Amino acid sequence: MNRRDALKLVAAAGAAAVGSEGFAYADGATEDRVEKWGKYEIELKGPATGNPFLEVSVGAEFTQGARTVKVDGFYDGEGVYRVRWMPDELGAWQWVTTGNAPGLAGKKGSFTCVEPTAENHGPVGVRDTFHFAHADGKRYFPFGTTCYAWAFQSERMQELTLENLKRTEFNKVRMCILPKSLGPGEPPRHPFPMVNNKPELTHFDPEYFRHFEQRVADLDKLGVQADLILFHPYGKEWGYDTMPQEVNERYVRYVVARMGSLRNVWWSLANEYDLLKTWKMPEWDHLFHVIQETDVAGHLRSIHHSGPMYDYAKPWVTHASLQTYDFDKMAEWKKAWVKPVIFDEVQYEGNISRRWGNLSGEELTRRFWLGVTAGAYCTHGEVIAVKNSVDGLSADGGTMHGESPQRILFLRKLLEETNVGLAQIDGAYYRSANGNAGKPGEVILYYFDYHRPDDYTFPLPEGASYKTELIDPWAMTVTPLPGTFKGKSDITLSGRPYQAVRFRRV
Amino acid sequence: MNRRDALKLVAAAGAAAVGSEGFAYADGATEDRVEKWGKYEIELKGPATGNPFLEVSVGAEFTQGARTVKVDGFYDGEGVYRVRWMPDELGAWQWVTTGNAPGLAGKKGSFTCVEPTAENHGPVGVRDTFHFAHADGKRYFPFGTTCYAWAFQSERMQELTLENLKRTEFNKVRMCILPKSLGPGEPPRHPFPMVNNKPELTHFDPEYFRHFEQRVADLDKLGVQADLILFHPYGKEWGYDTMPQEVNERYVRYVVARMGSLRNVWWSLANEYDLLKTWKMPEWDHLFHVIQETDVAGHLRSIHHSGPMYDYAKPWVTHASLQTYDFDKMAEWKKAWVKPVIFDEVQYEGNISRRWGNLSGEELTRRFWLGVTAGAYCTHGEVIAVKNSVDGLSADGGTMHGESPQRILFLRKLLEETNVGLAQIDGAYYRSANGNAGKPGEVILYYFDYHRPDDYTFPLPEGASYKTELIDPWAMTVTPLPGTFKGKSDITLSGRPYQAVRFRRV
Repeated sequence: MNRRDALKLVAAAGAAAVGSEGFAYADGATEDRVEKWGKYEIELKGPATGNPFLEVSVGAEFTQGARTVKVDGFYDGEGVYRVRWMPDELGAWQWVTTGNAPGLAGKKGSFTCVEPTAENHGPVGVRDTFHFAHADGKRYFPFGTTCYAWAFQSERMQELTLENLKRTEFNKVRMCILPKSLGPGEPPRHPFPMVNNKPELTHFDPEYFRHFEQRVADLDKLGVQADLILFHPYGKEWGYDTMPQEVNERYVRYVVARMGSLRNVWWSLANEYDLLKTWKMPEWDHLFHVIQETDVAGHLRSIHHSGPMYDYAKPWVTHASLQTYDFDKMAEWKKAWVKPVIFDEVQYEGNISRRWGNLSGEELTRRFWLGVTAGAYCTHGEVIAVKNSVDGLSADGGTMHGESPQRILFLRKLLEETNVGLAQIDGAYYRSANGNAGKPGEVILYYFDYHRPDDYTFPLPEGASYKTELIDPWAMTVTPLPGTFKGKSDITLSGRPYQAVRFRRV
Repeated sequence: MNRRDALKLVAAAGAAAVGSEGFAYADGATEDRVEKWGKYEIELKGPATGNPFLEVSVGAEFTQGARTVKVDGFYDGEGVYRVRWMPDELGAWQWVTTGNAPGLAGKKGSFTCVEPTAENHGPVGVRDTFHFAHADGKRYFPFGTTCYAWAFQSERMQELTLENLKRTEFNKVRMCILPKSLGPGEPPRHPFPMVNNKPELTHFDPEYFRHFEQRVADLDKLGVQADLILFHPYGKEWGYDTMPQEVNERYVRYVVARMGSLRNVWWSLANEYDLLKTWKMPEWDHLFHVIQETDVAGHLRSIHHSGPMYDYAKPWVTHASLQTYDFDKMAEWKKAWVKPVIFDEVQYEGNISRRWGNLSGEELTRRFWLGVTAGAYCTHGEVIAVKNSVDGLSADGGTMHGESPQRILFLRKLLEETNVGLAQIDGAYYRSANGNAGKPGEVILYYFDYHRPDDYTFPLPEGASYKTELIDPWAMTVTPLPGTFKGKSDITLSGRPYQAVRFRRV
């Protein structure tokens, strides 16, 4: 008898609490110990007849002192019900289950939330208004990529995707939960049971989600945030873009109940929401409310547009997720939204004929620098069609061939090295941004874009000394200048375009 | 006795008509024959005492049949008055002078306007609403450069400038009439007599203008239009930016009387007019009216801005002269102004520390392509400081060192080859423009900018066949594809960014 079977036996006898079992998280959790921001799971046996997805509700209340957290559970098929939660405080927790069917309500248990393991920094949230950090305080600089379809491609392609992400070190992936059209017969499974290639929207297919959750957990092992896209307009073949709103809401609740306990999850309510033509704005707003109400972990929430933007000032949106490369608008957006901004699509490095899919690596690298020095973040994507290759287009998963990923990683490491969020310096003569982690003007980063002066007199703040580094974003070199600089400092530059200069306060 | 002295003798006796004598135009004009769009000049002797610049008016009426053209003359010093005119119709012309001082009024004469010589195509005007042509119908595609101060630099620098223009083949030069500050003691002469380094604004210095006119004529010999800038904010040292409006108007009238007969003249009322802080808008408008009233040749008129644009919809402006590289606004500007648009400053190829002066040759070349495929034109400028060189910064005259001029010439020749003005194709998937010289869709020019698809299906118009050329704007290569193309045509491209494709109707 393996461990899973054993747990089922226990569950059948009443209720069993498991740690991260069934997931690849190295949480070190046991039945009665789970690390902070790990996944705690209660497994319950209940009715397997009728349609539990519609008819049965299940949940649990987790209590520590005067605090109680109410968590919705979900039906996982074959009479198994689960309640998952990501505990966010150390110490002893008691729980009691709720439910409207025999065997679900009134089960009780307890566990101890212990210190997180080394690589577990908790979920990512907003920090310093325009930036991000993990729950343990570690700053998070999003340098993500786009692999929309990777989790429902072939197993081989999924493995290639993971290998690729490990190599390129992107730390966020935008990925769809609902399938998109890839090719005949693909994907092999759907989130709903399929009847004559039509989804049976009154049920879910738990196996689809179990697999998907595993892929989210695989990303966590690589230190990658999963920016989960709940809706998109690319599944017309099965009507995923025009499901009734009650199905949409049931699906959202099901996804949150299943995956809200995974610490690397972000919610992207939709990709190109405005291309879902039958939707009305109040429906999007309502589903944001549903997520807010049910996601007790409070994961990041946004929505991605194609043409007209969603109003990112709405209070249930935690950050803007843009499709534009109009970085010069950042100043007004910061004022209007007072939130972090991620340029989640700035066009793709690639060679396909679509206008969005054929940037050079140089141009995409340039856009990342423009985004970062505007005080924002960017997301990578690649659509390089390689003849006679089975690598796929990496924007849907697979192996990347582009020249930008290593330059993007170089930029990410520059930010992580100084460990402060940057804000564009308004009115500066050249594009520049600065950031503080204590002392004002601690880091100042210039990006010259297409400008290539032979020299420039940098107006460094008075009363501080700076070490200076010439940075070549494409060659990925950092050349420190001897000595320190203060006040107006004339510095000879390379005369080449697309260069950067960093000043670090001594 | 040389010819000039002889003419003076004649003039002293009454009035003498000369052709282009004293200028380097190869007009083949004589006293009684002047080529069409050549310069006809009447020299008169009048008072040399008092202040003729203020007190004496002179002019002439040129008559052919029922048509009379009234032209203002000017005082050229030492008791010499001149009336200049550029005849615009072949055949016999009679004239009679006017004036308010002894010896000026009532002189009569005649001449015959003969066919222009080969290189004389007449002044440039607007053609097809958004484009330009010479008076004889020959299309003119402005690919100009900027040499603000060249005509009042050292003689050596002036010669270098002319040599440079001959080599680079720019066909328009933006140049200031009023001096700008260059260095101590420069320029050697001013348009006004100088007293204690202050201009005596009640007089002009005819020698300054004689020299200047010669330089304008030198440009004509090279086939270069002289886009003459009447006012600018760079002469603060002498108060040229804050002269009384009556002086401004007298200066405009004097300049028009002296140079309106030169066929390669354009009037740029000011450079960066909005930096002349004491001026009011009605003053600019009024001086446009003065030019309209006095310039019987009707040369092109515009004004160049720094920040806020002049309202180019005003009827006395013949074309827009912009300082911006926001090519995407062309569609709305065309609608608003219904005039040609020249992006007269799109920043400079260079290496200086000023933001406007350090583009790479690649970037400036790119901007020309963006401008032309937007249905507009661009103007070049260079500020490359070369160590230990006396070549100067070519934006003020001297020798160019940049990499863009030959690419700009390449683009100009592409346009001249098809000889039609281009209009951006609205709503096209990639940036493209077309033009007709009879047949619709005769020429279609695509510019892919930073896009680099491996191939693209071009939606060629139905019912026509096209020859196709792959164009590399930087390598300056034109690679014809075999055969002809019609309708939707999938064409393999180089995979490199910044490429172009041209289709020419068979």
